[in-house]
Amino acid sequence: MSQADQAILSLYVNNSFGVLAKVAGLFSRRGYNIRSIAASETEDPAYSRITIVTSGSPGKLEQIYRQVLKLEDVLRATLLPLDDLVQRELVLLKLCAGSGAGIGGLVEAFGAKVMDTAADGCVFLEYTGPTGRVDALIEAARPLGIVEISRTGVTVLEAAG
Amino acid sequence: MSQADQAILSLYVNNSFGVLAKVAGLFSRRGYNIRSIAASETEDPAYSRITIVTSGSPGKLEQIYRQVLKLEDVLRATLLPLDDLVQRELVLLKLCAGSGAGIGGLVEAFGAKVMDTAADGCVFLEYTGPTGRVDALIEAARPLGIVEISRTGVTVLEAAG
Repeated sequence: MSQADQAILSLYVNNSFGVLAKVAGLFSRRGYNIRSIAASETEDPAYSRITIVTSGSPGKLEQIYRQVLKLEDVLRATLLPLDDLVQRELVLLKLCAGSGAGIGGLVEAFGAKVMDTAADGCVFLEYTGPTGRVDALIEAARPLGIVEISRTGVTVLEAAG
Repeated sequence: MSQADQAILSLYVNNSFGVLAKVAGLFSRRGYNIRSIAASETEDPAYSRITIVTSGSPGKLEQIYRQVLKLEDVLRATLLPLDDLVQRELVLLKLCAGSGAGIGGLVEAFGAKVMDTAADGCVFLEYTGPTGRVDALIEAARPLGIVEISRTGVTVLEAAG
């Protein structure tokens, strides 16, 4: 999937039971792609933000946007390019076959952080950056024995200047 | 809500249409709380990881765990304490009433990063840390004029040593 087909859908919703189920249900019924989803409270506990990375032609993205806006409890929707300036994603990696030098190289090249080193020598790394950089870090880490990848999905500031 | 009532539910699922809708639907029907949810691809594109921060008594958490495991496409579930060692969350903040000194203090005290400064003087901050530290950063930032908070929700390495 090329980055060009992907977009960020940022939703501002009532923090009510079931709003996530309504949004996920719409995507499921219509067969819309969800590459990642991140949802959490906002500056006001009455509202949540749901951020979805989805994909499709410009026409399809417009259709998704309009369908989501029709849902009860969805107050606002914004469609943003995946390379938006204030878009970030968090990834945690467990690496079990890396040399210290290899891991040190990743830390230096990407600004990744070592969270912990297990008794068996496996290393836990943390990195936050734009999605393209997260993808690049994962590719660069493959030779170091990736045992586990845990990504949050994208989050974004809607009102970015 | 005290941190003691909260737990992380980490799910390893088939990357199929509708699995997120099934999980969200279960929480909605049963009235289980979702404080945050983060879902994304894993080391193997055939599988996704869904991480939910939920809350309840130990008996309720055990019930949620068992109900989720019964769902089609849920291959593995792990229940972890919210203060798990390799648990992290990403937050983006837009601050519009802060002095440079106030923002510099946050950056220094928490290791937060300035992502961008808008033409109107608003500052975009990025911070990654355990949930308790993210909550503390938000409290410390309140006097600096929080206009927007965007959190990813928690992610965790399941196989942490």
